[in-house]
Amino acid sequence: MNTFGEIIKISIFGESHGPAIGVVIDGLPPGFAPDPDEIAREMARRAPGQSDLATPRAEADAVEIYSGLFEGKTTGAPLCGMIRNRDTRSRDYQKNLARPGHADYTAHVKYKGFADYRGGGHFSGRLTAALCFAGALAKQLLPGVRITAQPLLIGGQPPRDETILSAKADGDSVGGVISCVAQPLPAGLGEPFFSSVESHLSALLFSIPAVKAVEFDDGFALADMRGSQSNLTDFGILGGITTGKPLRFCVAIKPTPSISIEQDTIDLSTNLPAKITVSGRHDPCIVPRAVPVVEAAAAIALLDLWLMAKLPLNN
Amino acid sequence: MNTFGEIIKISIFGESHGPAIGVVIDGLPPGFAPDPDEIAREMARRAPGQSDLATPRAEADAVEIYSGLFEGKTTGAPLCGMIRNRDTRSRDYQKNLARPGHADYTAHVKYKGFADYRGGGHFSGRLTAALCFAGALAKQLLPGVRITAQPLLIGGQPPRDETILSAKADGDSVGGVISCVAQPLPAGLGEPFFSSVESHLSALLFSIPAVKAVEFDDGFALADMRGSQSNLTDFGILGGITTGKPLRFCVAIKPTPSISIEQDTIDLSTNLPAKITVSGRHDPCIVPRAVPVVEAAAAIALLDLWLMAKLPLNN
Amino acid sequence: MNTFGEIIKISIFGESHGPAIGVVIDGLPPGFAPDPDEIAREMARRAPGQSDLATPRAEADAVEIYSGLFEGKTTGAPLCGMIRNRDTRSRDYQKNLARPGHADYTAHVKYKGFADYRGGGHFSGRLTAALCFAGALAKQLLPGVRITAQPLLIGGQPPRDETILSAKADGDSVGGVISCVAQPLPAGLGEPFFSSVESHLSALLFSIPAVKAVEFDDGFALADMRGSQSNLTDFGILGGITTGKPLRFCVAIKPTPSISIEQDTIDLSTNLPAKITVSGRHDPCIVPRAVPVVEAAAAIALLDLWLMAKLPLNN
Amino acid sequence: MNTFGEIIKISIFGESHGPAIGVVIDGLPPGFAPDPDEIAREMARRAPGQSDLATPRAEADAVEIYSGLFEGKTTGAPLCGMIRNRDTRSRDYQKNLARPGHADYTAHVKYKGFADYRGGGHFSGRLTAALCFAGALAKQLLPGVRITAQPLLIGGQPPRDETILSAKADGDSVGGVISCVAQPLPAGLGEPFFSSVESHLSALLFSIPAVKAVEFDDGFALADMRGSQSNLTDFGILGGITTGKPLRFCVAIKPTPSISIEQDTIDLSTNLPAKITVSGRHDPCIVPRAVPVVEAAAAIALLDLWLMAKLPLNN
Repeated sequence: MNTFGEIIKISIFGESHGPAIGVVIDGLPPGFAPDPDEIAREMARRAPGQSDLATPRAEADAVEIYSGLFEGKTTGAPLCGMIRNRDTRSRDYQKNLARPGHADYTAHVKYKGFADYRGGGHFSGRLTAALCFAGALAKQLLPGVRITAQPLLIGGQPPRDETILSAKADGDSVGGVISCVAQPLPAGLGEPFFSSVESHLSALLFSIPAVKAVEFDDGFALADMRGSQSNLTDFGILGGITTGKPLRFCVAIKPTPSISIEQDTIDLSTNLPAKITVSGRHDPCIVPRAVPVVEAAAAIALLDLWLMAKLPLNN
Repeated sequence: MNTFGEIIKISIFGESHGPAIGVVIDGLPPGFAPDPDEIAREMARRAPGQSDLATPRAEADAVEIYSGLFEGKTTGAPLCGMIRNRDTRSRDYQKNLARPGHADYTAHVKYKGFADYRGGGHFSGRLTAALCFAGALAKQLLPGVRITAQPLLIGGQPPRDETILSAKADGDSVGGVISCVAQPLPAGLGEPFFSSVESHLSALLFSIPAVKAVEFDDGFALADMRGSQSNLTDFGILGGITTGKPLRFCVAIKPTPSISIEQDTIDLSTNLPAKITVSGRHDPCIVPRAVPVVEAAAAIALLDLWLMAKLPLNN
Repeated sequence: MNTFGEIIKISIFGESHGPAIGVVIDGLPPGFAPDPDEIAREMARRAPGQSDLATPRAEADAVEIYSGLFEGKTTGAPLCGMIRNRDTRSRDYQKNLARPGHADYTAHVKYKGFADYRGGGHFSGRLTAALCFAGALAKQLLPGVRITAQPLLIGGQPPRDETILSAKADGDSVGGVISCVAQPLPAGLGEPFFSSVESHLSALLFSIPAVKAVEFDDGFALADMRGSQSNLTDFGILGGITTGKPLRFCVAIKPTPSISIEQDTIDLSTNLPAKITVSGRHDPCIVPRAVPVVEAAAAIALLDLWLMAKLPLNN
Repeated sequence: MNTFGEIIKISIFGESHGPAIGVVIDGLPPGFAPDPDEIAREMARRAPGQSDLATPRAEADAVEIYSGLFEGKTTGAPLCGMIRNRDTRSRDYQKNLARPGHADYTAHVKYKGFADYRGGGHFSGRLTAALCFAGALAKQLLPGVRITAQPLLIGGQPPRDETILSAKADGDSVGGVISCVAQPLPAGLGEPFFSSVESHLSALLFSIPAVKAVEFDDGFALADMRGSQSNLTDFGILGGITTGKPLRFCVAIKPTPSISIEQDTIDLSTNLPAKITVSGRHDPCIVPRAVPVVEAAAAIALLDLWLMAKLPLNN
């Protein structure tokens, strides 16, 4: 269940404060020479510690490749990439106090008290670094497709730094909306019903922590139109299949649940009410760092749909 | 790729104007006695020809069960249910004129000109009758869970019949938003990342023709909040796992693309511009009939997550 | 779990004495025109009631196609084929007496007493008719590959009718060995490890009731050789991947467990010892009718491997 | 395609002469405390360099666990185990000379010349160390089941060291047959058809390099019996489902293809005939080291079938 994809299969593993996170990517064509600089660039876009808009946790997020690459080219065998966790400060996390808005409580229940609670463990947004790595490969493999995401709204406003800094100053956080366009895409990607373009992409997009809504084409706005109007909009997807027009979608990112303000919670060991002040180092707004993750997810899902449609890759 | 589910696997087949549509459901527990009246009730909720708000195509949508049921109880082996197509009027469909907003063009490209074009073929909303049948079984299997969907908006307004009738009078159509709540649900359903509750449900919800957006909990509204506010909302899902609070989601349904107004299109045989007037018998608003389909999709996905979590069924 | 295949996915359903058995085949390319005479020929090879070497149960085994075919050509959507059960004599079966060597006891346990016990229910060899249908399509899709199985041994002897007739005269039955060759095949089919040619084929071959052993190339004989000798044999598979030489394998078929001789068994309702005389109509030797099933399984698995290797089909 | 299992999913990666091999295991229950000594014991059984019957390549084969384990217990999240390759001597391998009986040629074709050829790359028997690790966990999780394999024949004879040493002295190699018994097992494991016990186990057993035949229960010997006789044998599996009697199977292991004797081959760069003398360090007989691998494969497949049958684990 931790594997995504039909032709390109990716399996992720790792915890925020364990030794490493990683991903096994199966189904890559042989002879593909990934550009290491391009990978590093994509990893850097998501990496923490880069501005006062983001967490100061400093992670180089260099990817060590353990298999599937020989003399700089993919062999065709599964490729395992691993990213070490270096700058972990586990003391920031209290075992028994579930951080509101986080997976602490649900992970505790699901894993019967055995979850690695430090920094969200396997549920941490840090796992998206593995997606970014897989996405960087997928982007390079998709012939000529440009996948471009950007913040559309932050805190309900057009993106401005001061929205984030103001929340940060209050010990609070904000969310936002990211829009993404992929083009040019051939008509005919996607399968009817369960592997529709929307199904396949949304399954991966909703894997990204904090994503709470996904809309394709004009999304919710379509619901308010009449057919005579909506039929005139530019659908990138019809019947679950790409039309050849740009693929457009938006995702809603909830505000970072980690805030400095004292909050009510429960003590998982006693089930009694408690107070928590989430210290740690956190992003007052995860939206900017989520942008490359959204692109990565789109690239992975589109590459898989591309291969499901038996289209050639031009490497 | 036409199979959904990890433990309960459903495979659908059929075309709108072929002899029948159907579904094979694998993974049902043995000894479960489905209530045929309850199945008929769910099928009737979606069936066409019931009011002047919907298509006059009359289909009884009785389900013939060909396997997996013996003396009224599931055997544990795969259950195949089939629904005949009786009231088909294929002459309503023109092979070469792609109906705007439909899958005609994309199916034509994807299937290289060999798609069954009549009534949308395999891409027809009629296939959702198979989902309703599977959903009726899933609902009966989920111990005590109430899954209730309803129209939230139709044509951008609180649901009123006259919105639909007015569009119909204009030869036009409207869409809408459907909200759904499932409760009570135990905490701990869902898997991290690729089989998160949101991933699993959205993959199935986006399989429903006309669904263009899905949001969970407070969805897009969360993106506008601050963390101190969003952390106080009632999350049915955190980290992709159910919290034990009600599961809430909304889907956006685009307006029925079939409208009587003359529209521009292209002739698939010549790639030249053409005019089309979609005759046939169509729903001026698919939202009311989509309500039981949304419930069915939710029931199927939740049953699968329930079994993935190794929870018992109480039948 | 009742679905086989990665690109071509087949799901079977049905019980021996239910209304029908069938198969849903997903992943067929669009525009393929199956030859109905060829399908009928393959079905006839397996069909019962054809000689005094086989069961007199008379089944035409005509395949009704419910989806995925339009104007004689595949549409690309899932194809459902169904075969009616007509000549069923359920009175031949006693609910509580497990027939020795059959799945009656294990099905009873697995399905907690709810299995359809008549004629083996879902475990019946009759389900292989669905495999034969899928195999007939697969054979036609595989460009120029000849897949030929034949009895190698019957009752431990070179195949002779009198071996079967002699067992029949004694109210007994015999098994045998079937060899199969597929050629020409390109080098490069198969995936390392879990989808090796041997893994993929054996998973399907062992799905055939009565198959108890599978060997590839020189199989068990290789185990007795020295490397200097085995390296000189003609391997159709090395490292799980086809070499381009003929693919060769053998399967062992156990004797039909249904025999007229009185046998010891247990009564499933009381768990007490009992006597059983299996009446019904049965094959004194299933080997001749298993030959086309073995070919069908090979064709299905090879077609899937062919498409996994991204090789073109020449239809 | 490099993932095996329905509930317990294992994905392996790595090459013989790359930095490491490894496995990601998904679906482990939380709270399970694997015994590290027991893991080390299982790894040591397969590890090279232990006697003059095996290759002198010395590998400690210690498993580094990167995820899914916290304070000595499984968390429920995917567990990644990695085994470093230390004692690699890549100079032993010649890029263009395909070693007879190995996957060198087929890997070259399949991966279009980009395979890592050193020591068989991803096709190396070294990957079975990852299976042994996964198997060691599976064994500990299966409540009370003893899985015991042993050599039945080596070089066509009852197992004796001198058979191996004699072949070694000749620069040659021998194969053999391994038998395996798993007991006690509950009745009811396995699914009809495609996930029959035989299908599931054989798919994994044939993933082990050098395995060329698999038989269950009395296997090929059953094919020579009459029904009255075979019905009296102790079937561990009927209809693909366990009976509750001991599960028995045998696998044929071909002789190690690496021999010191000069052999004919082809030069992959020129497609011309060539001579090759395989130097390197190799096992004159792989059978003893394959014994724990066969047990591991059986344990993994049985654990998966156990969980598919929704039976509890007693940890």
